[in-house]
Amino acid sequence: MGHDVKKEIGELVNKVLADYNGTKNIDATDTFNKPDRNEIIDITNNLFFVVFPGYFKDRTYKMYNPENEIAVMVEDIFYHLNKQVALALDFCKTRGSMPEEQRKEESYRICKAFFEKIPAIREYVESDLLATYDGDPAASSLEEIILAYPGIIAITTYRLAHELYLLNVPVIPRLMTEFAHSRTGIDIHPGATIGKHFFIDHGTGIVVGETSIIGDNVKIYQGVTIGALSTRGGQKLSGKKRHPTIEDNVVIYAGASILGGETIIGRNSVVGGNTFITSSVPADTVVSIKNPEMEYRSAGEKHIKSEMKQSEEWFYII
Amino acid sequence: MGHDVKKEIGELVNKVLADYNGTKNIDATDTFNKPDRNEIIDITNNLFFVVFPGYFKDRTYKMYNPENEIAVMVEDIFYHLNKQVALALDFCKTRGSMPEEQRKEESYRICKAFFEKIPAIREYVESDLLATYDGDPAASSLEEIILAYPGIIAITTYRLAHELYLLNVPVIPRLMTEFAHSRTGIDIHPGATIGKHFFIDHGTGIVVGETSIIGDNVKIYQGVTIGALSTRGGQKLSGKKRHPTIEDNVVIYAGASILGGETIIGRNSVVGGNTFITSSVPADTVVSIKNPEMEYRSAGEKHIKSEMKQSEEWFYII
Amino acid sequence: MGHDVKKEIGELVNKVLADYNGTKNIDATDTFNKPDRNEIIDITNNLFFVVFPGYFKDRTYKMYNPENEIAVMVEDIFYHLNKQVALALDFCKTRGSMPEEQRKEESYRICKAFFEKIPAIREYVESDLLATYDGDPAASSLEEIILAYPGIIAITTYRLAHELYLLNVPVIPRLMTEFAHSRTGIDIHPGATIGKHFFIDHGTGIVVGETSIIGDNVKIYQGVTIGALSTRGGQKLSGKKRHPTIEDNVVIYAGASILGGETIIGRNSVVGGNTFITSSVPADTVVSIKNPEMEYRSAGEKHIKSEMKQSEEWFYII
Repeated sequence: MGHDVKKEIGELVNKVLADYNGTKNIDATDTFNKPDRNEIIDITNNLFFVVFPGYFKDRTYKMYNPENEIAVMVEDIFYHLNKQVALALDFCKTRGSMPEEQRKEESYRICKAFFEKIPAIREYVESDLLATYDGDPAASSLEEIILAYPGIIAITTYRLAHELYLLNVPVIPRLMTEFAHSRTGIDIHPGATIGKHFFIDHGTGIVVGETSIIGDNVKIYQGVTIGALSTRGGQKLSGKKRHPTIEDNVVIYAGASILGGETIIGRNSVVGGNTFITSSVPADTVVSIKNPEMEYRSAGEKHIKSEMKQSEEWFYII
Repeated sequence: MGHDVKKEIGELVNKVLADYNGTKNIDATDTFNKPDRNEIIDITNNLFFVVFPGYFKDRTYKMYNPENEIAVMVEDIFYHLNKQVALALDFCKTRGSMPEEQRKEESYRICKAFFEKIPAIREYVESDLLATYDGDPAASSLEEIILAYPGIIAITTYRLAHELYLLNVPVIPRLMTEFAHSRTGIDIHPGATIGKHFFIDHGTGIVVGETSIIGDNVKIYQGVTIGALSTRGGQKLSGKKRHPTIEDNVVIYAGASILGGETIIGRNSVVGGNTFITSSVPADTVVSIKNPEMEYRSAGEKHIKSEMKQSEEWFYII
Repeated sequence: MGHDVKKEIGELVNKVLADYNGTKNIDATDTFNKPDRNEIIDITNNLFFVVFPGYFKDRTYKMYNPENEIAVMVEDIFYHLNKQVALALDFCKTRGSMPEEQRKEESYRICKAFFEKIPAIREYVESDLLATYDGDPAASSLEEIILAYPGIIAITTYRLAHELYLLNVPVIPRLMTEFAHSRTGIDIHPGATIGKHFFIDHGTGIVVGETSIIGDNVKIYQGVTIGALSTRGGQKLSGKKRHPTIEDNVVIYAGASILGGETIIGRNSVVGGNTFITSSVPADTVVSIKNPEMEYRSAGEKHIKSEMKQSEEWFYII
């Protein structure tokens, strides 16, 4: 081609390297001092072997005794998580940096406390599984739900990440829930508080904000936002309760938006599809958008033909 | 650190193992007796080589003759699918368990019947490809659609899974469509019935329920739900027609919700963006939400400045 | 089982192969003459090492000097991208096929021009990172955003793909943004024009169309569509401006739809959640849906109990 390719590529490489001048936040000064996204993804995947023993298979080795497999897995996860938590402890904006020995000690303490929580996490996940089976007429077996349902992936990942969040681990809980978000379209912040028997159907587009509080036996469908009102305050709002409280036995149908830190949806209430709620709703209430007005026109005609007759149950969507 | 790490980790492992006491549904008693999600994902990916010969490449080996590659691929898929179907046949809640020999025979029969359907599936996929090219001004070539468009991934996976669903294979069809859901944000239940020339644009957030019936030449955009009304009945509704029928040549724009097992959208109708439909719409009708009222306020002012003038075509969204 | 399995499978393979009769667009005549999706995904992943040096780690090898790692990476990406661009140049519908030597020369020129743009791309990405930190009270550190936030993945991938789009590379830019769409639920067409300090929160369900023009300091939330009005024209609309213009400092809250090639949202305006905009909005305006009417019913009662009192800020959603 008449090019001195070696020289030209060399110049390109130098231009790219010259741009790493340390003035940008996107330049890291040291490769080895931060949590590794791939490691966190591996840890999250491996924790599913522990939460659902016997349901998922490791590609690399096969064992006849699932208990041996889990024992190996727990040790492996502990080793890697311990390393990643130690790295992550440097990230927290609210605490200063720690001497290395203290950071190692803290990381070990956190990982132990996390594994102590596994039986409690499994109890919640079992309740979520039963809620999903009871709620979905399309579910043909409990096994199908465990193996295939995105809601179970997102909730289980959240429950694991939430325990690390409560232990004040920076970055890693969010990496875990964003991995689930990427797989499922369901975005649950690890800081949210969620009770037992939580059921998510379809799920794509769901957002549950950091300071949300959700009770027991709550069901939510695709496209639901449990979010904040204006965040124009940006970082100044950090730490404040910005997201709603949803009490026990509430059902929230597809596309509903419930917003604001002082908004409470009272127990046993039903929130209809596509509603937009920014103030509290008392217990035992059905909220729905008023019959949305629709225009019907025959092809080629301009005037309205008829108003749509709504069914009594139009606010329920799956 | 002054810890007896070996002992402490050993205790943690024992606590986790002690929790596998067989009282929970999330504990499996046997690792090897159920379908494997990773295997189903591999099978689904490999089926794309067969449906679109020459378009996707296997990373592990290269062949100059695509026919040889496909021949090897078909044998490989058959072998693995046969194994997984045999495992899945234990999952079905509506039939009892079968003697192993009979299950093997049944699995072999199903896999043969499935591969007999490949040419018919390919005919449908070819029609979906042409519908996509015709419908999307942003499509620069047919090859771009095959290689990059999420709609084609979701529809093709659905068409493959649907044939296994019709052959009464449990769990595996749903694992296949949930894999596509995870990749695309498009959630089509394998039980749905969908005609030729089906076009999905963008796609994220689409839900098509189990008992939906969709005709030929239908177009749907992101965020559309073809769903059920209340599912408060839960498992009692299993098997009932809970989702709408969409006749030929219907277009459904972004964010529309069409709900209920008795709802029929008549042929050639257009359903506008963000509509909410719970009763039938006659043929040749344009349905749209009435001009949504908007408030305009200048910065700092409280009163309404003006009403928005809507264009004639505001109900069309891409 | 009494089957001649070898013979029966052989017949199945032959039936599948017989269907590859070259009459369908989904049959490729040659395996090696088109871009490879897996290669494009690898290239995209590797470009993240270059844009964010030191933040992501390669699984295969470890280096202590990040500059050496990046130098190796740039050469590797150049080699593979050059090969893929040469293959892609055959795909463009608007230009005829080129002699091979010319195609190689063109591909080399394009890849050089692309790498010259890396510092400019990095400047934009740095501004997006700062906008994200400023805008999100849940962000605990800049590093958390780089490692975990889907908005940053989607925007960075778009910024890389957009440069290849401007260099008239077919197929590859769209393969890159669809890879990001699959990971994040955010669908930004590589043809869109987007200014500095772009902030996306949550992101699932966002669609930004091919001919959109977006200014500096714009924020958008989950479920926002910046789209076209009717595309009934299909391929006839190809190349026409079909999508809106969003001026500087505009905020667009969750679920808003802004549609049409002549629609302009003036600078400093705020577009409320769930609005539906098809005509231009002047600068410094707040647009919101009028108080959506809600029905409240106590359990068992039929009549309306109360109208919801909306807060002053109800149009802001996160």
